Amino acid sequence: MTFAVQLLTIFPDFFTSPLSTSLMGKAIERGIFEVDAFDIREFATDKHRTTDDVPYGGGAGMVMKCEPTVAALEAAAAARPGLTRIYMTPQGEPFTQKIAQELAAGPGMVLLCGRYEGVDYRVREGWIDREICVGDFVLTGGEPAALVVLNAVTRLLPGVLGNAASIDEESFSSGMLEYPHYTRPREFRGREVPEVLLSGHHARIDAWRLEQSLLRTQAVRPDLLERAAEEE
Amino acid sequence: MTFAVQLLTIFPDFFTSPLSTSLMGKAIERGIFEVDAFDIREFATDKHRTTDDVPYGGGAGMVMKCEPTVAALEAAAAARPGLTRIYMTPQGEPFTQKIAQELAAGPGMVLLCGRYEGVDYRVREGWIDREICVGDFVLTGGEPAALVVLNAVTRLLPGVLGNAASIDEESFSSGMLEYPHYTRPREFRGREVPEVLLSGHHARIDAWRLEQSLLRTQAVRPDLLERAAEEE
Repeated sequence: MTFAVQLLTIFPDFFTSPLSTSLMGKAIERGIFEVDAFDIREFATDKHRTTDDVPYGGGAGMVMKCEPTVAALEAAAAARPGLTRIYMTPQGEPFTQKIAQELAAGPGMVLLCGRYEGVDYRVREGWIDREICVGDFVLTGGEPAALVVLNAVTRLLPGVLGNAASIDEESFSSGMLEYPHYTRPREFRGREVPEVLLSGHHARIDAWRLEQSLLRTQAVRPDLLERAAEEE
Repeated sequence: MTFAVQLLTIFPDFFTSPLSTSLMGKAIERGIFEVDAFDIREFATDKHRTTDDVPYGGGAGMVMKCEPTVAALEAAAAARPGLTRIYMTPQGEPFTQKIAQELAAGPGMVLLCGRYEGVDYRVREGWIDREICVGDFVLTGGEPAALVVLNAVTRLLPGVLGNAASIDEESFSSGMLEYPHYTRPREFRGREVPEVLLSGHHARIDAWRLEQSLLRTQAVRPDLLERAAEEE
């Protein structure tokens, strides 16, 4: 069965152009995965299609209500059961390439996008399998974060990328940052391509690239090296 | 002068719907910030509008060429000088709420989106001020990441959010994850709102929320507490 992504949002239009552009657009067109958007507002039962309300206990902001959110989750599950139900929230586990790989190996995912102060906590306790955070920053809603997860996961599906080799060599798959890349021309405004890359000597090129990866990771992300050491 | 965002990409259409939806769309309409997209392909000078080429030294994937990328960066700078030039890359510093605040305090930013194996390293050395990574995962290109940075930064601009208070109370601003939120109804499918939130006793509510924040942060993100302790 085709890998499925269900987007639950009060702004389904947000996703229109990203999903019709570039690799994602082509992969959907070719049926490699399918995306359905569920507009949570359509599951509100009152006249004004209310999806949010003031928080119990006071405080700024609004909270997304249980009824329309759970009704949307249930409609999504009826359309395609068994998908991992994910809530995009700053309070979730940090999203990593490893999680992307896990999700890509499954049947698909539901991405619930919160707005305002997020969804009523009871939705998270009863109808969500996994809470994911894309980083330590705050967005206006879960939509940009859902787009990131959708992109990172679906690009791992067979057939989305042309060249499988590029998946293995890239940043994070190896636990290190990638080495610098260069292409023609050999000289651009006084800046030259490192001599070693023009040498044709593959062992030297590999050694240089490994060294560059290490240096860059040490300088920018020493935490990645520490983590790799702990995991060994 | 209005806060400016310049997007440099070979897929300018990617951004159309996210930037016309919701809070971002409204803020642009109201002139709180402006967004210009520069199509890097239009700065390619050959007949086929080539923006990428094979890497020196071999390997999978393509590298974005110096000439069109730098020409696009220069056109962007001519249109609006003095903006922070940011390259979205897995090899950059991790994006945080603190960086979002720094960028929101400035005149604006250029967001260069890489594709394939990224841009020729000479572009990064000579024409970029800052390299930012939104997280430890790989995307098909910098566009979803740029959208995340654009969203996190511009929502901090005065006038974008209705309620300034909600900026102060949220996750990461305090160094801890947010407490659970609840709204009506009091009972939903057998699940009740915690009694304390209905008490009207503000000191007790504040204490409960602080405790919940701490418990959640300890369980999901102990690294945030360690970092906060180190910074003190």
